[in-house]
Amino acid sequence: MSGRYGRQTDIVYDRAGFGAPMRRGRRPALVVVDLTRGFTEDAFPSGADLSDVVEATGTLIRAARPAGVPVIFTAIVYTPAEATGDAVTWLQKAQGMRAMLEGSDEVAIDPRLPRTPDDVLITKKGASAFFGTSLAATLVGLGCDTVVVCGATTSGCVRATVVDAVQSGFPVLVPRECVGDRAQGPHDAALFDIQAKYGDVVELADAVGYVSRPTDPVPVV
Amino acid sequence: MSGRYGRQTDIVYDRAGFGAPMRRGRRPALVVVDLTRGFTEDAFPSGADLSDVVEATGTLIRAARPAGVPVIFTAIVYTPAEATGDAVTWLQKAQGMRAMLEGSDEVAIDPRLPRTPDDVLITKKGASAFFGTSLAATLVGLGCDTVVVCGATTSGCVRATVVDAVQSGFPVLVPRECVGDRAQGPHDAALFDIQAKYGDVVELADAVGYVSRPTDPVPVV
Amino acid sequence: MSGRYGRQTDIVYDRAGFGAPMRRGRRPALVVVDLTRGFTEDAFPSGADLSDVVEATGTLIRAARPAGVPVIFTAIVYTPAEATGDAVTWLQKAQGMRAMLEGSDEVAIDPRLPRTPDDVLITKKGASAFFGTSLAATLVGLGCDTVVVCGATTSGCVRATVVDAVQSGFPVLVPRECVGDRAQGPHDAALFDIQAKYGDVVELADAVGYVSRPTDPVPVV
Amino acid sequence: MSGRYGRQTDIVYDRAGFGAPMRRGRRPALVVVDLTRGFTEDAFPSGADLSDVVEATGTLIRAARPAGVPVIFTAIVYTPAEATGDAVTWLQKAQGMRAMLEGSDEVAIDPRLPRTPDDVLITKKGASAFFGTSLAATLVGLGCDTVVVCGATTSGCVRATVVDAVQSGFPVLVPRECVGDRAQGPHDAALFDIQAKYGDVVELADAVGYVSRPTDPVPVV
Repeated sequence: MSGRYGRQTDIVYDRAGFGAPMRRGRRPALVVVDLTRGFTEDAFPSGADLSDVVEATGTLIRAARPAGVPVIFTAIVYTPAEATGDAVTWLQKAQGMRAMLEGSDEVAIDPRLPRTPDDVLITKKGASAFFGTSLAATLVGLGCDTVVVCGATTSGCVRATVVDAVQSGFPVLVPRECVGDRAQGPHDAALFDIQAKYGDVVELADAVGYVSRPTDPVPVV
Repeated sequence: MSGRYGRQTDIVYDRAGFGAPMRRGRRPALVVVDLTRGFTEDAFPSGADLSDVVEATGTLIRAARPAGVPVIFTAIVYTPAEATGDAVTWLQKAQGMRAMLEGSDEVAIDPRLPRTPDDVLITKKGASAFFGTSLAATLVGLGCDTVVVCGATTSGCVRATVVDAVQSGFPVLVPRECVGDRAQGPHDAALFDIQAKYGDVVELADAVGYVSRPTDPVPVV
Repeated sequence: MSGRYGRQTDIVYDRAGFGAPMRRGRRPALVVVDLTRGFTEDAFPSGADLSDVVEATGTLIRAARPAGVPVIFTAIVYTPAEATGDAVTWLQKAQGMRAMLEGSDEVAIDPRLPRTPDDVLITKKGASAFFGTSLAATLVGLGCDTVVVCGATTSGCVRATVVDAVQSGFPVLVPRECVGDRAQGPHDAALFDIQAKYGDVVELADAVGYVSRPTDPVPVV
Repeated sequence: MSGRYGRQTDIVYDRAGFGAPMRRGRRPALVVVDLTRGFTEDAFPSGADLSDVVEATGTLIRAARPAGVPVIFTAIVYTPAEATGDAVTWLQKAQGMRAMLEGSDEVAIDPRLPRTPDDVLITKKGASAFFGTSLAATLVGLGCDTVVVCGATTSGCVRATVVDAVQSGFPVLVPRECVGDRAQGPHDAALFDIQAKYGDVVELADAVGYVSRPTDPVPVV
């Protein structure tokens, strides 16, 4: 990510003390943000073809299962009252999200993902998977100490979730191949900010290694 | 902001239903994010010369006073235990923020701002002025229905505060001249995302007019 | 409520400065806490016959409709993963709540209540209707400035909701006839604490008058 | 606690599935709620002589130190703007709390407690030590999995903190000798509710044993 805005910006960020690597705990959770059909399929106005992200996230989930790493899915879901009325202020700005109606195709988790009935599903009304939800309490209840964030969109719900994860006390990893967006510019800008300030942006192979053996001794960085 | 990433991105965002203007209420509050010396003065490693942002924010504050619009300041402040220990996970990543120690010059509100003893000061431990603070409750207690966000940095604490403001139920305005950052790239990227998804990025003159007469009939957009 | 623990306790509470009446705003909301069949019907182990509470709450809802006062229902609802696993720590203690499974009879809003499709339904995982939910944001989005709390149980979810409502910035009213519990002792103790510290416990007739004409001038107390 | 309201109430609570014991983790934290002079000294209108509670809590803290158990203190503290204005709705009801002004004797942690500079201090504006504070994030950051709550008052800030602790995902212990109140009735009623629904009320000796050797194998209940 460094380099995106040129050497001068990197110098300024180094001086300000950003970008240090985070500790990885022995009990991570995977949080799969909004990989519902309304975001992963190009046929929906709110969506884009995120097949690559779905595939990479599926790979990561399968690697996490044998180690007993919890997998938590999130989805934006509105009741009819919320989708059409004034209850959700965000919908004034993000009108397209009104399509995320309970029971609709848009809010169904992408069927290509290896989801099981034991996976917790968190429904949310805003961008962050933590805001106004039980996610933080669930992570504590499950004994998790680190959060790996996958999903969509990088510049929207993923980024907001990453910011809230670290604010909630959890070190954060973001496997680059497991997050996607509608457009390249906001995606790249979000990864720059995340790596500098909120979490470690890593390669999928690194994340796969970590979640498959989270209790291995952590290598010295 | 539209145009930043080219016409194709704008088309994709329009199709997804982003960027609609928000309602302006009759009881706004000004939230001045982290305009402490550690961010507004270039002499501190964490800072940059944000004199223009301080001046523009001062202009907005002075315009808001006669109408009785509440002005709320925020600051990142750590106790010695927090600054040096493991209590704040964010500090693993943002090591430079450990300098924001209670009583230090870094955490003093910029003295060029027209602050009064009646202004609420919210201290925070993370990026968002809402996360783990009493800000949302304060806004409700003061009867506010709209939030105008100023401060620093655009891509960090301002953006996180804007996202949480709209998630908390408040329409958001961001006067462009009243927010600043260490570097231009992340600043511009943040304003693009905010205007598309979380709040209305407006000119200072527009914000001055609004906060000085918030109960005027709202013009039809 | 005063008098419950004798004159000495009342003197101590007066000295500590508790029990002052709260301001009533012009835009109240009714929050109907957990009047689901699992709590209102004696046939369920978790329930009691709360027919009187349901009837009184129905009276209050009907009074509120013509004035456009929002009515928000809440329900404890767990997914299968939550009901059986470790995700919800509260269920270690309150094992009986594991019966509140999505789709079950227990979590259905009592059909005797005059509910409409426009009423927001908040599902929750704990005692408070605010904790880990979108309720505070919804109240802000709807422009509400006061919360009237009905429901069950007085010493459990009602009380927790009342505490969070005032902490969230909203003055609180609790119509005595509209809250109920499994047993008299905890019910009475909760009303004592609420009236002293968190909200105004009022008669149903008073609440009916208020919600039917919330914009009337407030009488001087 | 069972027995307080008679055998019939106990039967009803058993049927509803309350009162089960909670798991004790290997990494507890002590949360010492509001043992500030304004609550522990009878000379202040808001206070009572809680010398016994202070002494018992001191005993527990000393037992916890050798095991490295984090000790977190909380205090209600208002800025002048908050203490006198409308920012904190709770102060409409609990007028006496307006005395909890930053820098005042009332908000000083009781000097009889063995506090160290490494102990985190959480300042709060309401009853719960979790509401609008960084406490939950701090507990996660410190890697804690269980919360032992001490302090004052049992029916007020202690109870609200206990409810939020379990809602936040932490099993809760309340050592009976380490919590106190202004009056016996509300104290006893709060302990009844806590033991039934939110946490395990235990003897001081039990808590001392636990925090001094939290990684010992947990005895089968």
